[in-house]
Amino acid sequence: MINQVDKISQKKGLPPGSLIHVGKVKTKSCIITSISYNADFYEQKLPSDIEECLNFDDLKLFHWINIDGLHIETIKKIGQKLDLHPLLLEDILNTKHRPQVEDYGEYIFFTLKMVQVLPKKNIIDLEQVSFVLGKNWLLSFQEQPGDVFNDIRTRLKENKGLIRKSGTDYLLYSLTDIIVDNYFLVTEFINDKIIDVEENVLHNPTEEVSFDIQKLKRVLLQFRKSIVPLREAISSLQKNELPHIKKHTLRYWRDVYEHLIHLTENIESQRDLLSSILDLYLSGVSNKMNQVMKVLTIIATIFIPLTFIAGVYGMNFENMPELKWKYGYFAVWIIMIIVAIIMILYFKRKKWL
Amino acid sequence: MINQVDKISQKKGLPPGSLIHVGKVKTKSCIITSISYNADFYEQKLPSDIEECLNFDDLKLFHWINIDGLHIETIKKIGQKLDLHPLLLEDILNTKHRPQVEDYGEYIFFTLKMVQVLPKKNIIDLEQVSFVLGKNWLLSFQEQPGDVFNDIRTRLKENKGLIRKSGTDYLLYSLTDIIVDNYFLVTEFINDKIIDVEENVLHNPTEEVSFDIQKLKRVLLQFRKSIVPLREAISSLQKNELPHIKKHTLRYWRDVYEHLIHLTENIESQRDLLSSILDLYLSGVSNKMNQVMKVLTIIATIFIPLTFIAGVYGMNFENMPELKWKYGYFAVWIIMIIVAIIMILYFKRKKWL
Amino acid sequence: MINQVDKISQKKGLPPGSLIHVGKVKTKSCIITSISYNADFYEQKLPSDIEECLNFDDLKLFHWINIDGLHIETIKKIGQKLDLHPLLLEDILNTKHRPQVEDYGEYIFFTLKMVQVLPKKNIIDLEQVSFVLGKNWLLSFQEQPGDVFNDIRTRLKENKGLIRKSGTDYLLYSLTDIIVDNYFLVTEFINDKIIDVEENVLHNPTEEVSFDIQKLKRVLLQFRKSIVPLREAISSLQKNELPHIKKHTLRYWRDVYEHLIHLTENIESQRDLLSSILDLYLSGVSNKMNQVMKVLTIIATIFIPLTFIAGVYGMNFENMPELKWKYGYFAVWIIMIIVAIIMILYFKRKKWL
Amino acid sequence: MINQVDKISQKKGLPPGSLIHVGKVKTKSCIITSISYNADFYEQKLPSDIEECLNFDDLKLFHWINIDGLHIETIKKIGQKLDLHPLLLEDILNTKHRPQVEDYGEYIFFTLKMVQVLPKKNIIDLEQVSFVLGKNWLLSFQEQPGDVFNDIRTRLKENKGLIRKSGTDYLLYSLTDIIVDNYFLVTEFINDKIIDVEENVLHNPTEEVSFDIQKLKRVLLQFRKSIVPLREAISSLQKNELPHIKKHTLRYWRDVYEHLIHLTENIESQRDLLSSILDLYLSGVSNKMNQVMKVLTIIATIFIPLTFIAGVYGMNFENMPELKWKYGYFAVWIIMIIVAIIMILYFKRKKWL
Amino acid sequence: MINQVDKISQKKGLPPGSLIHVGKVKTKSCIITSISYNADFYEQKLPSDIEECLNFDDLKLFHWINIDGLHIETIKKIGQKLDLHPLLLEDILNTKHRPQVEDYGEYIFFTLKMVQVLPKKNIIDLEQVSFVLGKNWLLSFQEQPGDVFNDIRTRLKENKGLIRKSGTDYLLYSLTDIIVDNYFLVTEFINDKIIDVEENVLHNPTEEVSFDIQKLKRVLLQFRKSIVPLREAISSLQKNELPHIKKHTLRYWRDVYEHLIHLTENIESQRDLLSSILDLYLSGVSNKMNQVMKVLTIIATIFIPLTFIAGVYGMNFENMPELKWKYGYFAVWIIMIIVAIIMILYFKRKKWL
Repeated sequence: MINQVDKISQKKGLPPGSLIHVGKVKTKSCIITSISYNADFYEQKLPSDIEECLNFDDLKLFHWINIDGLHIETIKKIGQKLDLHPLLLEDILNTKHRPQVEDYGEYIFFTLKMVQVLPKKNIIDLEQVSFVLGKNWLLSFQEQPGDVFNDIRTRLKENKGLIRKSGTDYLLYSLTDIIVDNYFLVTEFINDKIIDVEENVLHNPTEEVSFDIQKLKRVLLQFRKSIVPLREAISSLQKNELPHIKKHTLRYWRDVYEHLIHLTENIESQRDLLSSILDLYLSGVSNKMNQVMKVLTIIATIFIPLTFIAGVYGMNFENMPELKWKYGYFAVWIIMIIVAIIMILYFKRKKWL
Repeated sequence: MINQVDKISQKKGLPPGSLIHVGKVKTKSCIITSISYNADFYEQKLPSDIEECLNFDDLKLFHWINIDGLHIETIKKIGQKLDLHPLLLEDILNTKHRPQVEDYGEYIFFTLKMVQVLPKKNIIDLEQVSFVLGKNWLLSFQEQPGDVFNDIRTRLKENKGLIRKSGTDYLLYSLTDIIVDNYFLVTEFINDKIIDVEENVLHNPTEEVSFDIQKLKRVLLQFRKSIVPLREAISSLQKNELPHIKKHTLRYWRDVYEHLIHLTENIESQRDLLSSILDLYLSGVSNKMNQVMKVLTIIATIFIPLTFIAGVYGMNFENMPELKWKYGYFAVWIIMIIVAIIMILYFKRKKWL
Repeated sequence: MINQVDKISQKKGLPPGSLIHVGKVKTKSCIITSISYNADFYEQKLPSDIEECLNFDDLKLFHWINIDGLHIETIKKIGQKLDLHPLLLEDILNTKHRPQVEDYGEYIFFTLKMVQVLPKKNIIDLEQVSFVLGKNWLLSFQEQPGDVFNDIRTRLKENKGLIRKSGTDYLLYSLTDIIVDNYFLVTEFINDKIIDVEENVLHNPTEEVSFDIQKLKRVLLQFRKSIVPLREAISSLQKNELPHIKKHTLRYWRDVYEHLIHLTENIESQRDLLSSILDLYLSGVSNKMNQVMKVLTIIATIFIPLTFIAGVYGMNFENMPELKWKYGYFAVWIIMIIVAIIMILYFKRKKWL
Repeated sequence: MINQVDKISQKKGLPPGSLIHVGKVKTKSCIITSISYNADFYEQKLPSDIEECLNFDDLKLFHWINIDGLHIETIKKIGQKLDLHPLLLEDILNTKHRPQVEDYGEYIFFTLKMVQVLPKKNIIDLEQVSFVLGKNWLLSFQEQPGDVFNDIRTRLKENKGLIRKSGTDYLLYSLTDIIVDNYFLVTEFINDKIIDVEENVLHNPTEEVSFDIQKLKRVLLQFRKSIVPLREAISSLQKNELPHIKKHTLRYWRDVYEHLIHLTENIESQRDLLSSILDLYLSGVSNKMNQVMKVLTIIATIFIPLTFIAGVYGMNFENMPELKWKYGYFAVWIIMIIVAIIMILYFKRKKWL
Repeated sequence: MINQVDKISQKKGLPPGSLIHVGKVKTKSCIITSISYNADFYEQKLPSDIEECLNFDDLKLFHWINIDGLHIETIKKIGQKLDLHPLLLEDILNTKHRPQVEDYGEYIFFTLKMVQVLPKKNIIDLEQVSFVLGKNWLLSFQEQPGDVFNDIRTRLKENKGLIRKSGTDYLLYSLTDIIVDNYFLVTEFINDKIIDVEENVLHNPTEEVSFDIQKLKRVLLQFRKSIVPLREAISSLQKNELPHIKKHTLRYWRDVYEHLIHLTENIESQRDLLSSILDLYLSGVSNKMNQVMKVLTIIATIFIPLTFIAGVYGMNFENMPELKWKYGYFAVWIIMIIVAIIMILYFKRKKWL
């Protein structure tokens, strides 16, 4: 997860609608996949040029055009062909955009973050996905190949569930739903990390722990920033009557909304958990400190007076009557033992031992 | 109480409405209890097959079907027979669902958490209960046998109060009310635990205490997550005119709502209490530390100078006039006693003794 | 002030409207006082049976029936005679009820907390008072004899102010107003306690102080829980057109509302004050600790090197040339004094002395 | 600034509208100043009796009656003459009243706090000012002589700006505006104090500093309590159409409102500043503590082993071969120096030196 | 960034609309630039007198008058010529004004902060910019020469984008947009500083660090105070139908609004980051302290008992049998080594070594 400030400043001074890629460019290639379908028909194509597949006149067919890689020329062509607003094109290229739904009258723009755990690298990957939903078509823009949509492609191909029978708004819902389902995987991944940290705090509390906690806190913050604006966006999608979103699919969107509320609650719980783990760690550190201090104090306060007594009878005065007593040495030992016992009893009473 | 993240991710990639059990499966069996009643009639059956009891045509009778154990096949059959929405069936099986009321036009879906103190095991048990309320019928789904509804069953059987005279919406209220009443038992249980912890902080403050406080904080958080969404749900139930909820029962729902506000206030108080107990503990720890340091300082600062004096007269120089004085030894003792007294007076003035 | 969780759980499983006393029963007796009045007439009775005084047919007279002691039988009789809703009767007996105004159409239910400083015992006493306001009558229910209404009784008897000329809604306002006026006495009592604690922090900061602060914080929390819901209740009383509340008395209720806002602001200030006193205490503790550490360090770092030097010349090697020097002993003293002076100058520069 | 709880309790038990002075009585005298004016006319009088100047029949003239000193008899007379509501008169005498605007139909009641820095005494003085605005008259009530209105009086006398041409609502605005302008002086005064404290933290961090910070925090809290309710009051004044407030003066009130928002933002900044100064102070204290501990540790850990070695060869065993070696003494010195160097190198590596 | 309280108090006592410069005067000169343009025409003038260029009668042309330097006389003249409200002129001169949009009917007043990183001085510069938008004209007021508008000037001159084709509302949007784009540069600058501080905390944690963190926190606070009110202002600009703001430019304003939300989120993240860095620093400090204490304790507790033993056999009693044993000295060494080993094993078990 990137915790740098977004270098939006590159766009400074350009007229609005200038197409400039904001954020790290993840791939230079641009792979187009076009799927046309209805209840009885299914065709998948990989056109080399985008213009081949932007004909949506046959209203009986639904079209899903997926573009992997934010290729500026391709996006420009799409904009011209479908007459998309320049600010919309600009937003597709701004990979630091907040999740948002926007109504452009003829079409809807919808952008969100796809968050995945990359299993091999054991890290969380964040990628922006933008959708443009028209009457019978859906465009999806991804930063790079590789996504979480394979289950949807299978359902489309094998005509499972309602997906071929319903329109592109249901397809948009399905894609959103699967992205949100992946958020739960991320939450579980973070949860495992938190449990590891807690284990460490309880059994091996080194200084590393506070670094780990801070790191996890930042990951949660970043994750939260993907979820909360999306929740608001979907909430507004339910309330405002948007074009091309059919009424009877609203219940499905509401389901996604409930999931997102659940996720934010989980993130809040995890933050509380991290705070309480940090508290435990700090309280453990201070307890250890106390123990160290107690040991020092006990040893020092027992032996300092004894050493003093030994020092007294190490003095070389000529006239020191005790030195000549027959049992002086033994008497001193007895005194020293009594002093030590008194000290120990005092510590016992104070519950330091 | 489970503080793991909910493994909702199992559902990833499935079409919406796929029936999959989310959360730990608590039982494999499925016990169906059917109670048909009106003011003059009462019959309880234990049908082996669910289809035997799903005939609700006689509008003079009210039906309460309780299902213990989330058996997927049974739920599917109910869904087909009563024409329930697939998302509703999905939600019944998702035992991690947030408390919620949802209006499906022909029926209402209502899900909440039943929280009980299991007296033998001295732990808090959390179980999801879902209701579907129709015109003259009420379905209730529980994760496992054993619930808090026995008082209601007795009232139904023995025709106590209004329960037989009123419809299934009043029955739903009664069941909700008794679940909420049990929340108070849980609050009292937690309260007893808090009082124990406070006792420990005051009389036996070991490191364990901070663990206990953290544990109780988590329990409260979990408990709060059951109550606050339920409060919102019942608030929306009062405001929106839902089908099958009669107007004159709204005052009863308002009563439940008041109880839930009372409960959240209690939970907030308990959280404040825990924080203040933690503060007391930490302040106690730091006070103890201070005492330890003071004892060390007093002993060390008294004896270090004395030991130095003794050290000086332990030196073996040939020419040390004091050593040959007749009362040198006694003079040194007097000096040492004076030094010690000055130190003690200094500490007295500083109020360290 | 009671900081236990309310034992509402006693009611678990009973049908709604069951009359059960929730909370500690403060008295078993039940004293009824009936005052009938209008501008020209005043009569006070102490009927032994409640039914003697529940005849409110003469609309020219106003009636105030005060009941000290929550006697279940009496309340049942009142409910039957005046046809009160069972939930209302239940709420009167629930002495843990939140302050609330509820409109029952024919009458209003209003419950709040009477908080007094018991001067002899130096403690704060909290008692629930419930009102039922009808067309020309007002019922008031108290947990035990002894209240803050004597000034109102005098005003009624001696026909002072508007009280005899106005209806029972004005009487209800007057009783509420005097209860709220007593809250100010409680605030002042708490304020005196806070000033005491502050004095202690500044002049005699023992460990007790943090206990006292925690105790006061809890008292404030408890007190706040009596005031904030009452504020909301009176706010809703102003906004909704309730039966029997005449329009021209709304300004008086607004006055009470302003007092309650003032009180909550005071409580917030007092909580801030307590927090800052705690901060002062903790900062004082840590300052003392620092002083202790400095004294230890200064004494130890001055004498440890000197003791080492003395130790060196206490060794018994046969060949130690310094020991035979004539002024070796004095030279060592000079060295030791120089070392000590260097140390002291170092501490001066560090501003530890 | 007074941080005592307001002794409103004096009023306990009195009928509403009873005229009782709440708060400290600042003066016993009562000075009345009456200014009558319009664009062409100006007359100032100092009537000894209030009734002389309460004739407002000539609608061509505007009247500003200022009363310094809350004299109960005078206020009663005004109330009778102008037929003011008893609660309004009560509020004028309650010097602890929150800033508020209230619409009484025929006139508006407006109360706020005048806060000044008394330059000679270097303290902040808080005084309540109440206004009653009628059709062509404005009453102002102050607790004592001495105010911030001299600039307004000059403007009235010398016919500067719009003040003589506009009505009494513009006069009320002008008086409020100048009171709010004085708040900025108070903010600057507090700011200077904060800068002083910051200086002390950086260059002379004694224990006093935390007291000073707490004191300033309380002053800010008190100040905020004067400003925030006033902001709300002026906001409501803009929104509700109040009698005698002309539409075209609303922009001026909005200007005052903006100033108050600015002030609250400043106060928030100052509170943040104080918190960060406190953090700096505490972090400085703990840094000093660390330094003290390091010095102690370095000195002690270097010399304790050396002293031990010296102690060993101070033992009096008959058979200690080293003592008889010719260069034993010098060898011990070398060992001791090596030990010391190792220690110092260890501390260097740990970056403690 | 200035963290002083704004010296608005200079205006105390003056009638509203008095033109007084609030804040530091940054320049005494006043440079006027007048640009007249439409799709086909472009003319730039530098009139010495403001009155030369205030003729906006030809509605086919758009006019942008930029004034660098808040010259009171010039502003007065503009006010008279264009009949601007005195409060508006006052606000232009108040360089401490909060960002705000205000509708004056004939024209709109819009003020905001231009924040730049001055690259040479490595500091952040804050300057107030005020706009007055009329039918076909736009006035812009800056505190001093030097701004971020050069890109706009180039676009105007070279007829790039929509700027010449659209009206002055689009020009106002463009200028606002570029100011907001510069905020991102500031955010990145602050971010670099935060990364520096974090580096220091991890690799060179001196006391300086906490000062740096406090400084950055204040800068963020100050920056936030420029952004949040601006966000509100632009939000109100979108909602209210303001004169001269054409409907089809609202989408552009919405874009600016989204940027400002993004910025506030970034600032919140940076504050969280700073807090977590401070936590890391403090936890590092306390860890170091613990290490110091452990070393002291280990050294002291090992050697203090040994020194005691040596002290015992340094006593000069005549009758000490051990001293005469042949291997007494070696036995003492063995005892001392055993004691040391026990101590070390104890520390190992406690994991202090």
